Amino acid sequence: MPATQEALHFLSQLKTTTTAAISRDFTEDRIWLNGREEDVGQPRLQACLREIRRLARKRRSDGHEDPLPLSLSYKVHVASVNNFPTAAGLASSAAGYACLAYALARVYGVESDLSEVARRGSGSACRSLYGGFVEWQMGERADGKDSIARQVAPESHWPELRVLILVVSTEKKPTGSTAGMQTSVETSALLRFRAEALVPARMAEMTRCVRKRDFQAFGQLTMKDSNQFHATCMDTFPPISYLNDTSRRIIHLVHCFNAHHRQTKVAYTFDAGANAVIFTLDDTVAEFVAAVRHSFPPELNGDKFLKGLPVEPVPLSDELKAALGTDPTPGGIKYIIATQVGPGPQVLDDPGAHLLGPDGLPKAAA
Amino acid sequence: MPATQEALHFLSQLKTTTTAAISRDFTEDRIWLNGREEDVGQPRLQACLREIRRLARKRRSDGHEDPLPLSLSYKVHVASVNNFPTAAGLASSAAGYACLAYALARVYGVESDLSEVARRGSGSACRSLYGGFVEWQMGERADGKDSIARQVAPESHWPELRVLILVVSTEKKPTGSTAGMQTSVETSALLRFRAEALVPARMAEMTRCVRKRDFQAFGQLTMKDSNQFHATCMDTFPPISYLNDTSRRIIHLVHCFNAHHRQTKVAYTFDAGANAVIFTLDDTVAEFVAAVRHSFPPELNGDKFLKGLPVEPVPLSDELKAALGTDPTPGGIKYIIATQVGPGPQVLDDPGAHLLGPDGLPKAAA
Repeated sequence: MPATQEALHFLSQLKTTTTAAISRDFTEDRIWLNGREEDVGQPRLQACLREIRRLARKRRSDGHEDPLPLSLSYKVHVASVNNFPTAAGLASSAAGYACLAYALARVYGVESDLSEVARRGSGSACRSLYGGFVEWQMGERADGKDSIARQVAPESHWPELRVLILVVSTEKKPTGSTAGMQTSVETSALLRFRAEALVPARMAEMTRCVRKRDFQAFGQLTMKDSNQFHATCMDTFPPISYLNDTSRRIIHLVHCFNAHHRQTKVAYTFDAGANAVIFTLDDTVAEFVAAVRHSFPPELNGDKFLKGLPVEPVPLSDELKAALGTDPTPGGIKYIIATQVGPGPQVLDDPGAHLLGPDGLPKAAA
Repeated sequence: MPATQEALHFLSQLKTTTTAAISRDFTEDRIWLNGREEDVGQPRLQACLREIRRLARKRRSDGHEDPLPLSLSYKVHVASVNNFPTAAGLASSAAGYACLAYALARVYGVESDLSEVARRGSGSACRSLYGGFVEWQMGERADGKDSIARQVAPESHWPELRVLILVVSTEKKPTGSTAGMQTSVETSALLRFRAEALVPARMAEMTRCVRKRDFQAFGQLTMKDSNQFHATCMDTFPPISYLNDTSRRIIHLVHCFNAHHRQTKVAYTFDAGANAVIFTLDDTVAEFVAAVRHSFPPELNGDKFLKGLPVEPVPLSDELKAALGTDPTPGGIKYIIATQVGPGPQVLDDPGAHLLGPDGLPKAAA
């Protein structure tokens, strides 16, 4: 079975692993997501496959030496797993399509224009092709050719920065973020104003904050921009609400925590889902996690409440407890993933890490 | 006890009743709200009292005949009750201060500038001094002199129009709407844009919808404007969330209901709280109430679930049930008040309806 395999992973603790293989023995394109075979005919996936084959064909016709014994007519098998909830506003599709594009590029011998492939799956996937701090310029052209991501700083730039994912719900969100954004663009006057009049200055300010490692300004801007994004979702018609009551309690908790410390020590941001992404610095992680445990007492699996990077348990001061108020929400947060800014796509050389076996089928299912 | 009494009520089913009395026997200003004595020293109340006494003094010095044996040095007793939840985003303070201004004006013999008095309590109270459909022009002057309300149409103009209050929560809201609006004005760029670029055209369009009794356009605009107001709350820093998960389920229910009927038969709006105000026409009330019962099965007091105007129970079609989905939220809505557009402040001549007894104290407490 001369299947060519490439696997790779994506972020520091939030990880997508994808294996792609092509073989003349495969009779059809197939894909397995998190162990379950999915319909390979779905439009976004088909668009990615068409684009990578177009690029491979172009590359061959341009006379590049072909380093792989591939035939463009070979079918492809893809297996991909996330170690975090899918479709819960944690950019799983961005990570997934970035990873897919990278893996497909390796098996088809394509070296450039990966953004073009990834974007066919999810607009923001082009951002996930880089590690560290990445700026995504949305661009103005209808064909998306000027929708470009670029690295502002590598992952080593701000080693004290920590990321906590507060997983509120693993339910699929009712509105997919791509469809939601299209409706917003069509119906929200506030979104148009935000995109034209506010975002450019905010992008520049955010880049400055990251370069200077100015956590105060970074945190404030992160929260304000998250709120404004969700404001434009609410201004969409019919309105879109990604945040739920637990999300709002997390927002309140963060503001109480910062007010108690009289500075912005913690910042939240929410993507297209109810889960919070919390930014803080390494010296604040333990106290904030203790505050989260206080306000959202873990219902079950208390020992599995914290995943990812280790966090020392610390006691909360009575003053901070008082500042947080006395209305705990047991079980509101399912678990926390502690992580940090990670690298971009990487090749896993160890065949043991590959998801497809020598027969081209998922190992678990083999 | 020569206490001069005036009582009045406010809306069709949502009613504030206020009695004000002055007497030389009273030793201090006192106020009872919903039967409980409150601090008469609170700034907004003091501002109303100062303004009414200033107007009465001005009137006397202008040489008007004084129809009442009053002394400006007399102390005032005020008792006020709402028959609906206070501080839950149902404009209780607007109704309350409008009613207070009207009652004070009667006992102090003041006939004009009631807006000036009411506004000292709550900006939107000037809107509540009229019945029917009222437009409130916020104005631009810092002193609020151009913040004027005017009646667009009397309450008899659109007799088919019905209003359903879905009472979600009787908890006090965490942010008072007046303080919230001040923070929004200071921090939300989207609110500034909305006020300058969007609201004037929407006001004109809303006036047109009411005049033409165009429910389709009225309903759409009502929902969009409610959503945009809550968007600007979210864009405030720290953000303000008046809506909760039940509010969002109501929004979803309304959109499902309208989608099923392929037209806007029902519209929601939310003020500074989680409770929904639903507009619909008389021919749709029964079916929508049935849909609410289906999606929010009453937990207790099933027979007290509906207050106000009578609504016939009707069965839901299987198609509509299917359109509403199968995720009911028992107890999410506490009760419904069915009402319609009502008149402005009215004097209650029956002394039995007055809240203060001959001794100037609340009757219940006497």
